[in-house]
Amino acid sequence: MPLPKSIATVCLSGALPDKLEAAAAIGFDGVEIFENDLLTYDGSPAEVGRLCRDLGLSIALYQPFRDFEAMPEPLRRRNLDRAERKFDTMQQLGAELLLVCSNTQPATLPEPERAAADLREMAGRAARRGLRVGYEALAWGRQVSLWRQAWEIVRAADHPALGLVLDSFHTLARGDSLAGLEAVPAEKLFFLQLADAPKLALDVLSWSRHFRLFPGQGELPVAEFLRDVLRAGYRGPVSLEIFNDEFRAAPVRRIARDGLRSLIWLDDVIQAEAPPATVPAAPLPAAPMLDGIEFVEFAVDEPARAALGEFLGTLGFHCAGRHRSKAVELQRQGGVNLVLNSEPDSAAAERFEMFGPAVCAMALRVDDPARALARAQALLSPAWQEPVGEGEQRIPAIRAPDGTLIYLLRPGAEIWADDFALRPEAPAVPPLTGIDHVVQALAPTHLDGFVLFYRSVFGLQPEPLLELPDPFGIVRSRTLAAPNRSLRLPLNVSESRQTTTGRFVSAYAGAGVHHIAFATPDAAALVAAMPAAPLLDIPENYYDDLEARFGLDDAALSALRRGHLLYDQDGQSGAFLHAYSRTFQDRFFFEVVERRGGYDQYGAPNAAVRMAAQSRHRG
Amino acid sequence: MPLPKSIATVCLSGALPDKLEAAAAIGFDGVEIFENDLLTYDGSPAEVGRLCRDLGLSIALYQPFRDFEAMPEPLRRRNLDRAERKFDTMQQLGAELLLVCSNTQPATLPEPERAAADLREMAGRAARRGLRVGYEALAWGRQVSLWRQAWEIVRAADHPALGLVLDSFHTLARGDSLAGLEAVPAEKLFFLQLADAPKLALDVLSWSRHFRLFPGQGELPVAEFLRDVLRAGYRGPVSLEIFNDEFRAAPVRRIARDGLRSLIWLDDVIQAEAPPATVPAAPLPAAPMLDGIEFVEFAVDEPARAALGEFLGTLGFHCAGRHRSKAVELQRQGGVNLVLNSEPDSAAAERFEMFGPAVCAMALRVDDPARALARAQALLSPAWQEPVGEGEQRIPAIRAPDGTLIYLLRPGAEIWADDFALRPEAPAVPPLTGIDHVVQALAPTHLDGFVLFYRSVFGLQPEPLLELPDPFGIVRSRTLAAPNRSLRLPLNVSESRQTTTGRFVSAYAGAGVHHIAFATPDAAALVAAMPAAPLLDIPENYYDDLEARFGLDDAALSALRRGHLLYDQDGQSGAFLHAYSRTFQDRFFFEVVERRGGYDQYGAPNAAVRMAAQSRHRG
Repeated sequence: MPLPKSIATVCLSGALPDKLEAAAAIGFDGVEIFENDLLTYDGSPAEVGRLCRDLGLSIALYQPFRDFEAMPEPLRRRNLDRAERKFDTMQQLGAELLLVCSNTQPATLPEPERAAADLREMAGRAARRGLRVGYEALAWGRQVSLWRQAWEIVRAADHPALGLVLDSFHTLARGDSLAGLEAVPAEKLFFLQLADAPKLALDVLSWSRHFRLFPGQGELPVAEFLRDVLRAGYRGPVSLEIFNDEFRAAPVRRIARDGLRSLIWLDDVIQAEAPPATVPAAPLPAAPMLDGIEFVEFAVDEPARAALGEFLGTLGFHCAGRHRSKAVELQRQGGVNLVLNSEPDSAAAERFEMFGPAVCAMALRVDDPARALARAQALLSPAWQEPVGEGEQRIPAIRAPDGTLIYLLRPGAEIWADDFALRPEAPAVPPLTGIDHVVQALAPTHLDGFVLFYRSVFGLQPEPLLELPDPFGIVRSRTLAAPNRSLRLPLNVSESRQTTTGRFVSAYAGAGVHHIAFATPDAAALVAAMPAAPLLDIPENYYDDLEARFGLDDAALSALRRGHLLYDQDGQSGAFLHAYSRTFQDRFFFEVVERRGGYDQYGAPNAAVRMAAQSRHRG
Repeated sequence: MPLPKSIATVCLSGALPDKLEAAAAIGFDGVEIFENDLLTYDGSPAEVGRLCRDLGLSIALYQPFRDFEAMPEPLRRRNLDRAERKFDTMQQLGAELLLVCSNTQPATLPEPERAAADLREMAGRAARRGLRVGYEALAWGRQVSLWRQAWEIVRAADHPALGLVLDSFHTLARGDSLAGLEAVPAEKLFFLQLADAPKLALDVLSWSRHFRLFPGQGELPVAEFLRDVLRAGYRGPVSLEIFNDEFRAAPVRRIARDGLRSLIWLDDVIQAEAPPATVPAAPLPAAPMLDGIEFVEFAVDEPARAALGEFLGTLGFHCAGRHRSKAVELQRQGGVNLVLNSEPDSAAAERFEMFGPAVCAMALRVDDPARALARAQALLSPAWQEPVGEGEQRIPAIRAPDGTLIYLLRPGAEIWADDFALRPEAPAVPPLTGIDHVVQALAPTHLDGFVLFYRSVFGLQPEPLLELPDPFGIVRSRTLAAPNRSLRLPLNVSESRQTTTGRFVSAYAGAGVHHIAFATPDAAALVAAMPAAPLLDIPENYYDDLEARFGLDDAALSALRRGHLLYDQDGQSGAFLHAYSRTFQDRFFFEVVERRGGYDQYGAPNAAVRMAAQSRHRG
């Protein structure tokens, strides 16, 4: 029996009914009503309560009640009056539990016994109405900022209607842990709030108010936190309380789905570790073992298909076959398959109409497509099926958050011979070994959702955020990579619409693939074998600086110069050589990359050179 | 003789020639060439040098040379080779001074004498080419992070081609000062970089890389810093080095103008304080003494004029006159004059065509309009003059950064009788005493520029940034106010286009007035006297919470309820009562405010209630 899943209304955008309807539609069991959402709403608490009941949502908590305990008179008495007014509201709502967060006022007295007495008085008044009070330590509380301090006060108050509220952010953001929680009786754990966050060296209040994330989107050990709470015997709701400026600006159902996905994923993460007694849910199907990208598919029309085929031809690709029943062409170079889909009335055609030429699908090789599909579905990513012809393959697929299809294929599955009339392999330039990485440009509000999707559904690991200087603003990049490095997906965002990334985002209405990097064991030889390739010109000044930075010899430098190649190093022996194509029809471009000696990055120091060259090319 | 004014190319957006041309066009004397801007540019250093000379710009500095000093072999030797390559580049550029910033590498040795020996060796090599080296302490340098440490090393190295570079950010961000600088010989002060910043509790590296501002836009004591450097005898360029993501995304000339304006303003600020010997420039005309807003002018067409007149009628205004020669109407209520301008072929008409009904001008009462105009011009805000008819008043005016006209009027000047056929005063509702504040909605990239404009040209003081929760995202608000409080201009920005502010910004293509607050001594009486006013409905829940929070009595509460009034308190006795109109044609709205007992804010805790109500009204 999984624990009830709840979300605080403050996580979501819009008016209170919009928030409630989204939470219910996505599948949450309950909500925390955030007071500001009620105050600014023009319906009565009773109406809100009725709406929740109609939607099948429990009201797990009403919050926050601030700056209550250990105040001198007359503030103490006024605070108790204030509590009575809020109890009125809660009874009209049908909310049973009130969150009291630790006092932040300078006037609060440094006397835990006063705090305990006040909370005992409040709990007594609550109990007379059938209500309860949960006390939470805010990380920036004036006298009480650790859960252990809050617990000492709750213990001293010793009232059955008073318990503890735990919040992962307030504990983990201070570098604190739940060590000692096992000494707290399980029935005193009234409520659990979960939030993740990026690691920021920011004051904890600003960090909390603006940069919280759903579990799995950030860098805090939220799974371990949940495990500790379950081990301590907690069996109440698991509730998300996320203050995030971007979430509040995003479509409410998208954010609600991300939230529920994060809780389902968390359940799964702790399965492996937690003792059986605390396992809260049936396990998810395991994440797939990944084995690279079988193909990338482009939505084109006939003229764009011809133009893209020609463009790819200059990069060493040849037309390896045509689909038997559809206007679909296979372009191939070594281990890289690119599908050009101009079939009318298909999902690809829809994509083309919206965006012009665009990547519309990727096929991932996974050990067990059916299991991967079942996992995706359990994580709220519905299966997708395009109509297929007689005798043609039916490939399981899901949609990424931007609508891109992700096909799931068994490694070694022969998908080409059945559906395609294949042509003999052309005499090739040195063969590519595969697709090294695929870069997507996203609107900033999409980043956290994409991270959670790839992390939860495919088990990819997020890497640290990088900052890349474009001539017209900053581009931020976060890569998700398979532990075995068979799949690498950098995600680029930019607040500016004038950057290279910002322009791609606009062209794709929020998200789209902007470049694909092909892997080669010898970039210089490859580039030399495709003299017609429209490679991005690299300034001489760049090579002068390479010479100064790395002390490369003349032969190495002139090979780089000749090949329009950029260069980077990492670790003891890692090196990276890469060249970029120009951009195809202002939509996407290609890269060839050679990794030497275990180089594990993406040439970030060269991104500024690329983006400046791209801005020159577009004039 | 003012010190030369310089700007680092990293402050500005675009390719290197765009940056140089903007710096020259705005009037800078020189630039710092930021290495990344050169590396990503496809012209040679010699060509860049020629362009600078053609534009009349000196190259004040080439930077940065990183991670040089106190490295073990073979890194030490490689670093010297690297320096020789950069000296080559500088000679081609025609740059004479290289900035070396303190080493951040873990490998750097904690041995100042090694650092001094290395810098001495480097300076010797530079001197043989006629070049010089300036050493700067980065706030996050590994061994050297304070200017005094850098100076000890420069002193020990004792080479005439080696000196110190000071940077206000690196010193002030650490809470350090220039105490002791008088012991450094003036000829050892090679270069001065200035940057301001907001006070953020952020790690100093992120703070520096993303949130620097031009002097006057932030909260660091940059003027005092500059004064100390001048007292120490420095007479080189004053140069801006600002890393700011938004500046990089904004139009290059706008940012360049802001930069030069900040340096002109700084000159002016230090005039008053610095001993005459160090005064670097002729003084600016003094900032005006302000005395409130004489009128606000709206751009309308005939139908919008009629509709707005009717709307204002419900708020107690009456048509007090018509212009003798133009399609301009005066609406008046007590001390508030609103001008409705539907004259074809005017600046107002241009504004109306672009945005629909919009505020196009404000008239400020200032002690000396000619002096205020001269000051504005000296601060790069050109005078503006609309054609006037025979015998009509010619009022001096400038343009705000968004194009809004700001007229400058002497208090008590009779501007109405000459140009307008005035009608007798209508029997009025309780008269308004004036305009309390005017709120502008801005795209986030405009905020810092507006702050500097109002601060420098009018001597307004920026107040701390507030955060206001809209149902669809966060709105940030920063107010500029006259010391005597006769002019208050809150500036609101939002990253989200869905917020109330974001929607106004979109409607106005980046910036525009979204509401005007009228002052009354008795808000309840005023509202009672205008029963037809389309006031914003306030939820009952809000009043229930007021009762809980402030313990207001029933009479007070029901007066607030009846009047659609919001309520706030500050300090011991300050109180604020205010009501909002609905929005006129989705463009702007009005507020009536009553300040009691020295209340000095704007009711920020109620902004969420207003914005939620506005989002309900628009459905």
